[in-house]
This record gives sequence, structure tokens and C-alpha cells, in this order.
Amino acid sequence: MSDPLYLNAEGLKAPAGHYSHAVVVNGLVFVSGLLPVDAQGNMLASASFEVQTRQALDNLAVILKASGSAVSRLVQVRAYLSNIENWTEFNRIYQAWIGDVRPARAVVPVPGLHHGVAIEIEAVGAVTD
Amino acid sequence: MSDPLYLNAEGLKAPAGHYSHAVVVNGLVFVSGLLPVDAQGNMLASASFEVQTRQALDNLAVILKASGSAVSRLVQVRAYLSNIENWTEFNRIYQAWIGDVRPARAVVPVPGLHHGVAIEIEAVGAVTD
Amino acid sequence: MSDPLYLNAEGLKAPAGHYSHAVVVNGLVFVSGLLPVDAQGNMLASASFEVQTRQALDNLAVILKASGSAVSRLVQVRAYLSNIENWTEFNRIYQAWIGDVRPARAVVPVPGLHHGVAIEIEAVGAVTD
Repeated sequence: MSDPLYLNAEGLKAPAGHYSHAVVVNGLVFVSGLLPVDAQGNMLASASFEVQTRQALDNLAVILKASGSAVSRLVQVRAYLSNIENWTEFNRIYQAWIGDVRPARAVVPVPGLHHGVAIEIEAVGAVTD
Repeated sequence: MSDPLYLNAEGLKAPAGHYSHAVVVNGLVFVSGLLPVDAQGNMLASASFEVQTRQALDNLAVILKASGSAVSRLVQVRAYLSNIENWTEFNRIYQAWIGDVRPARAVVPVPGLHHGVAIEIEAVGAVTD
Repeated sequence: MSDPLYLNAEGLKAPAGHYSHAVVVNGLVFVSGLLPVDAQGNMLASASFEVQTRQALDNLAVILKASGSAVSRLVQVRAYLSNIENWTEFNRIYQAWIGDVRPARAVVPVPGLHHGVAIEIEAVGAVTD
């Protein structure tokens, strides 16, 4: 049993609140809820759903790599959508981003997200030995 | 540290999106968000809350078994309800389904779910040696 | 691989539904969705957001300790808020409560919570050897 490792990924905007980008423990990495924010800290609330989704997913990829995991080792992904009508578009963008691997997934409708963005993404990954 | 095992359960409708029914890693199984869909792929959106809930839970049982886990080894269950007024009925149906075991649980209200269903269920189980 | 350990914390109101306060498995503890309920079972739905948040967090601390974990070993925290405008106040109260440790975190907006409360909190912690 190791202690949890709290980490922020270089190259991403530091967390805006009191949290870490991710925590590694027992061979798993738990990733915080990610919003579509770019590396300069701009919240992409007025961008298209596709641009917002790609930004959140790209942030996830950076965090997974910094945690010793990878997109190809994702275990679970949870996407919160402020408009569930975006389900099909989310699925399309997500599939193009992730490739062949198919983690467990839940798509959860929510009322308006923080900062008025359209998507928030959480994930759990497996860490490489 | 083993690699994640991505699996779909036989006897259930294959996932409608880019995900697996469940992923096994490090002795745990992470189950995708399950909707009340029957084995033929019919979404039970117009059925009663009880019928929808039983269908989603029965799907969960099949997936747990296929993953080397079991209802009796559930660790955590998360139920998303489009009408939180169904809390009491959910609790009653769930208790009858699960029996004595009492996993950690959260009941989360959400705006209208995908396909207009009344419930979505996620879970984590422990895998048998 | 050990069997899951299902537990309720002494000093807290027993769960109102068919669940345990927490489940320990494989070095992790999964904590149920916690509402702002006091030790006598009073739901603090009419209290201020701050009082509600402190109560839910204090309940979490008791459960973590009873599980062999601790606030300082939290891995992930998920806060469901019925009014996302409380994000900043939540972050402030949470930071004061938790101190230096920064678990992975997600703040998720939801429609009205059960019993009309303002916050529900879920968590995963690491258990001490």
C-alpha cells in the first residue's frame, strides 16, 4: 500500500480551485473533473461543442501521461453534458480521440455547468508498472 | 499490476456507443452507466419506474457475473434518477434485488436522461480471486 | 484480494436507505453520497450553504477515520451542488476544512437534491496499512 501521489501536469493551467489534476494510488489514477480550459486558462464556454470536447479530452491525455498512465490504459470515463442532445456528437468525437480502446463510460446530463461550459470529464486510468 | 480487461457481457445488447460494458483492473470491475434496455435493445423509456429499475439492475447482475464479480461483491452503486421523488421506490426495489449486502451508494438527481429513461446505474465491484 | 468490508461509522446517523456509510476494498475506501444530516438524523435543508457543507464534510471525516483512512489520505472528492453558483463558497469552505492536501475533485451541478438539501458529497480514500 503506497501513499497517494498528488500531481499537477506541466503544460496545463494549474487547478483553479483546491484540488490536484490527478491522484495516483494502488496502480490507478483518479483524474479531477476537467473543463474545456486551454493552457493559458481561457475557458472555452463560447466555443462549439466539438472544440470544447476536444479541449477537455486533450487535457485528460496530458494528465494521464503525467500520471504514468495513457489514453490506451483508461479504465473509466464519465462525461457530464449540459445538453444530453449532444450525446451522439460526444460519442463521435470521443471515438475519434480515443481510438480502439473502449473504457467503461457513463454520460450524465447536468444542469448548466460551472462557467457555462458544455462538458466536464472525469476519468480513472491504470498506471503502467 | 495487470492490464485493464475490457469486456462485454454475452446475453446483453452490445453497447450502443464507444464503450465496454465493464473494465476489470486490480481486483475491481468498473461498470458503465447502464440504462433500462432489454436484451433485444429495446429502450424501456415508457415502462414504469419499477420495470426500468429492475431492467437496469438485472443488466448489472449479468455484467458483474461476466466480470468475475457478483451482486454480493458490489462495492459501490450510483443511481442517477431523472425524478428524485422516486428515491423511496428506488430504495425499495434495490433492496429487494440486492438482498443483505449494502454497498456504498449515491442517488444523484439529473435532468432528463438519454432516450428519456428514468434511471441510469453505475457500479464498482470486487472481482473474485 | 480481500473481500469488501461494509461498515457504518459510530457516532453518525445510520444510513436512511439500503446502503453502508463506506466499503473498504483493496486499500481503498468508497464512501456513500453524504447529505448534511446531523448525528440525530436532522436534515439541515434550511441551514446556510456553509453549515450544510461543513456538516457533510464533518460526516465524511468521521467515516474516513472509521474506515482506517483519513482526510489527509483522501484520493477523490465529488461534490454535487444544487446551485453551481455556490462553487466559490464551496471551494473556500472545503479548503479550510481539508488543509494542504489536494485530492482529485469534481464539482457537479444537479437539480434539487433529495430532502431539498444544497450539497451531497462522495469520496474515495486510501486506507492506511
